[in-house]
Amino acid sequence: MITPMIVGTEWLVEAKGCDEDTLRDIDSLRAVFSALIEDLGLRTLGKDVWHKFDGEGGVTGLVALTESHLACHTYPEYKIATFNLYCCKDRPEWDWEENLRDRLGASEVTVTKIQRGADRTATVPVDGATAAAAPGGDV
Amino acid sequence: MITPMIVGTEWLVEAKGCDEDTLRDIDSLRAVFSALIEDLGLRTLGKDVWHKFDGEGGVTGLVALTESHLACHTYPEYKIATFNLYCCKDRPEWDWEENLRDRLGASEVTVTKIQRGADRTATVPVDGATAAAAPGGDV
Repeated sequence: MITPMIVGTEWLVEAKGCDEDTLRDIDSLRAVFSALIEDLGLRTLGKDVWHKFDGEGGVTGLVALTESHLACHTYPEYKIATFNLYCCKDRPEWDWEENLRDRLGASEVTVTKIQRGADRTATVPVDGATAAAAPGGDV
Repeated sequence: MITPMIVGTEWLVEAKGCDEDTLRDIDSLRAVFSALIEDLGLRTLGKDVWHKFDGEGGVTGLVALTESHLACHTYPEYKIATFNLYCCKDRPEWDWEENLRDRLGASEVTVTKIQRGADRTATVPVDGATAAAAPGGDV
């Protein structure tokens, strides 16, 4: 057993009840990335990747950061968008709830903060969240 | 409260005790991506992004998939690599432990499987893991 070493913080975010058309619009999702990157003072590495799936499909967006990476996937058929923000350094909390309500029409936003390098399932509750830390599992 | 809808499966992987030089070598990490993509029949979307940080720094790798995305970050100073594999469809389990032991020299591999769109902290134990499902937390 090696002592857990925290190498990064990851935010896993689920936004539910979003506007379906907005979840199909790359520009709207790119605007979420831009706001987050600017607000937290992040720096992009290389080009961002955006893909709109055919027809009624959603969008995938991905960008490498000096601080790690940012990803989103949208599912208009379920009115859901998910985000991953992984930072090798801790950052101030971003108001995911307010931003995703305003920008995507989300009616419910769930945020879980995870410490990478530590036991995988050790989650850190964020403001207002009821998530509890659970014992980690080593393979 | 909206009923949780599972839209994807994400594997969060921490590999510890890895070989430091291998964690600085983009080709070795790209080979992990290639093996995983081939073994699970995944399809890439656009170009993969690789960045080697200066000097003794690690590597960041990122690729969008038709099925969602794959990311890795390495920390040679701590002998740690972390991976995220996010798939919108469930996939067979990949043998992260064997692959990362053989390819990166990892002495300990921790895998946690998370259902995206569901309550954030609901983790699914993988073979051999002791991770327990925890109650989810809604913001």
